[in-house]
Amino acid sequence: MSSPTGSTALLTDHYELTMLASALRDGTAHRECTFEVFTRRLPNGRRYGVTGGIGRLLEAIENFRFGEAELAQLASAKVVDASTLEWLRDYRFTGHIDGYPEGELFFPGSPLLTVRGTFAEAVVLETLVLSILNHDSAIAAAAARMVSAANGRRIIEMGSRRTHEESAVAAARIAYLCGFTATSNLEAGRRYGIPTAGTAAHAFTLLHDSERAAFESQVATLGTDTTLLVDTYDITRGIQLAVEVAGTGLGAIRIDSGDVGVLARQAREQLDSLGATNTRIVVSGDLDEYAIAALRAEPVDGYGVGTSLVTGSGAPTAEMVYKLVEVEGRPVAKRSSRKESRGGRKAAVRRYKATGTAVEEVIFRMGPGAAEPVLGPHDRFLQIPLMRDGKRVDDLPSLEDDRQRLRHALVTLPWEGLTLSHGEPAIPTVFHET
Amino acid sequence: MSSPTGSTALLTDHYELTMLASALRDGTAHRECTFEVFTRRLPNGRRYGVTGGIGRLLEAIENFRFGEAELAQLASAKVVDASTLEWLRDYRFTGHIDGYPEGELFFPGSPLLTVRGTFAEAVVLETLVLSILNHDSAIAAAAARMVSAANGRRIIEMGSRRTHEESAVAAARIAYLCGFTATSNLEAGRRYGIPTAGTAAHAFTLLHDSERAAFESQVATLGTDTTLLVDTYDITRGIQLAVEVAGTGLGAIRIDSGDVGVLARQAREQLDSLGATNTRIVVSGDLDEYAIAALRAEPVDGYGVGTSLVTGSGAPTAEMVYKLVEVEGRPVAKRSSRKESRGGRKAAVRRYKATGTAVEEVIFRMGPGAAEPVLGPHDRFLQIPLMRDGKRVDDLPSLEDDRQRLRHALVTLPWEGLTLSHGEPAIPTVFHET
Repeated sequence: MSSPTGSTALLTDHYELTMLASALRDGTAHRECTFEVFTRRLPNGRRYGVTGGIGRLLEAIENFRFGEAELAQLASAKVVDASTLEWLRDYRFTGHIDGYPEGELFFPGSPLLTVRGTFAEAVVLETLVLSILNHDSAIAAAAARMVSAANGRRIIEMGSRRTHEESAVAAARIAYLCGFTATSNLEAGRRYGIPTAGTAAHAFTLLHDSERAAFESQVATLGTDTTLLVDTYDITRGIQLAVEVAGTGLGAIRIDSGDVGVLARQAREQLDSLGATNTRIVVSGDLDEYAIAALRAEPVDGYGVGTSLVTGSGAPTAEMVYKLVEVEGRPVAKRSSRKESRGGRKAAVRRYKATGTAVEEVIFRMGPGAAEPVLGPHDRFLQIPLMRDGKRVDDLPSLEDDRQRLRHALVTLPWEGLTLSHGEPAIPTVFHET
Repeated sequence: MSSPTGSTALLTDHYELTMLASALRDGTAHRECTFEVFTRRLPNGRRYGVTGGIGRLLEAIENFRFGEAELAQLASAKVVDASTLEWLRDYRFTGHIDGYPEGELFFPGSPLLTVRGTFAEAVVLETLVLSILNHDSAIAAAAARMVSAANGRRIIEMGSRRTHEESAVAAARIAYLCGFTATSNLEAGRRYGIPTAGTAAHAFTLLHDSERAAFESQVATLGTDTTLLVDTYDITRGIQLAVEVAGTGLGAIRIDSGDVGVLARQAREQLDSLGATNTRIVVSGDLDEYAIAALRAEPVDGYGVGTSLVTGSGAPTAEMVYKLVEVEGRPVAKRSSRKESRGGRKAAVRRYKATGTAVEEVIFRMGPGAAEPVLGPHDRFLQIPLMRDGKRVDDLPSLEDDRQRLRHALVTLPWEGLTLSHGEPAIPTVFHET
């Protein structure tokens, strides 16, 4: 239930519009500015970040328009004066955006998004930019770690119920981008064309007069290739019944509680002894990347992951900031405290060994007088053009492109960068002095 | 950017519709059922939970309709068969919902929401119910603790940038419900009539040729009663300038970084020495309930709270579940593991001492043969009717009513229940045996 008008313009902090009003009045609103999105650190000893939300963001910026409903609200709440309202009436972003594509790794200081335009047109986007990127990138970092931990096994996103109903749709999209096989979220299926999956909950078994009746009904409707949930009453009895009802061609069983490692081993033995040697075992229930990794040696064929995915597994926000770094070509930066930033528009190169292993993230100043770093044969620029003159550039990567990008990018990390243990970023960030 | 159709029907897990399809086929879909929402525990040693999201939920249930767009998606993705699609075409919830009102305290096992209807009409609401209640109640619990810690001082919600853009709107609503003074989120202002607030960020100062020019511009536009952000370059110099520009009638200064306790003390001395004795001091920057409490002895007039509020301050989801507890009047419950539930429709009474202090949460079975507990003169039932025959009941509490409710409810807790330290729930939950 978002804005009834489809506009994203009020998904904005009040102070952006009061800044705008003051700057329009004193004339500084029209100064050419560069804002940069970056993080000062990775959360919780994480080894890498993963960009998420770029695709959603570009669409949201195109819908950032102040229609009559938005202007009426700002007028009645006396947020800004009449001349600012007139300026907003004609607002559309006409500037340029470059950034890391979605599904790219990032590190502290990486210039993730560079927004160029007048102060007025760029400052009002701050909240929208950060909301989308902070949420989606938090999910992405968790999802990528879970996919790594699953080590090629199927992993299904089923966390919708543990987060805001719209965050759930975004999280499902990101999970797929990061390598999840499918999602339970039907709206994500509609909006992004992601495969959806699901069969039955305990309620379905409890509804019926017996577990057998429930299984028979499910198999009659969904076929023998379905997944039967066997832990409503007694797992051993449940598995026995499942194979009796569906036959040895049963697609899968799901175990949602208990010590799933031990239970999976027992289930595999039982299924094999019943001749259901191809019946898969899916486990779910409070799994995170550590639990998934711990199950690596067990006979598990697939994971269902909920809460930990949609809450970013301990890091529910990516801590990105949107900072003014350049005004009329002049670098600017806050300098009162430990929260210091580096002024000036920046770009980034990732350096690689000949073997393809990433070595370091090099950040350098752009613009007149700034020396670009010398690129090695395996190095590459990380930012790509995303918007020109307020319009999305042609040939933006698709969700499938981004999915491939992340899969390949993870392979380039030094091996210790893929471990789940806390530590330093997988590669260092180097600020190229100019 | 929610569903373009305004329908909430696809904010649903795939398995709810496959269960529906099977149950329609075998006839059990029409059995009268009761589903109950509750939590098995409070997160992270919290002393109480706070219900959030009831108002949003009731509206979302009324918009849970399968229009042509939703049906076309389900058909093309082959989620369910044609006869199930026909059933969904006519779907509207026609059952009854009772529950704890919004802004009510709750404890492990509290029957927070009781949904009665056929299996078919109630099962499909599971994800939507849990998404809204889990998110909003997680924010509510954090917000209530922060308001307690602020101890009567003003506290402003400004976390939109750290969470999904739609979660941000919901979080702003909940923060206000829990006693926050205002929010930065303009869409929350529009959608819920909540006061919004904000003045300027560091970018505004950096945009200008000098800090003085920025302050002069802001004061010219927003008046001397505005809040000037003084920590872009040097706080002492910033405060000096702020009073020079705005005069001793300056509304407030804001400090967003550094050791805000020490800085607030120094700022108060400096402001007083400049004659700005009524100028307030607002602090922000990574505050949570512990930081707020730690500043209680400092000369701080207001807090700006972001990240920790919108991420539930360490508990980003409320861990509520939606369980089938009764089928055709017969209690049902899963019983294979430690995740056991108590079957049967339940209600709750909170017992109080004559002094008004809460003593315990009593949960009891409802229905034929179940004995209700004997109520003392100060005890009260906790559930209220929310929907009858699929329609919201008249005279539901308003956001302001719920705001008052929580304020009063917190006063009834035993004092140790309001401490921030980890521990047992503030009052015990007692299951009344029948």
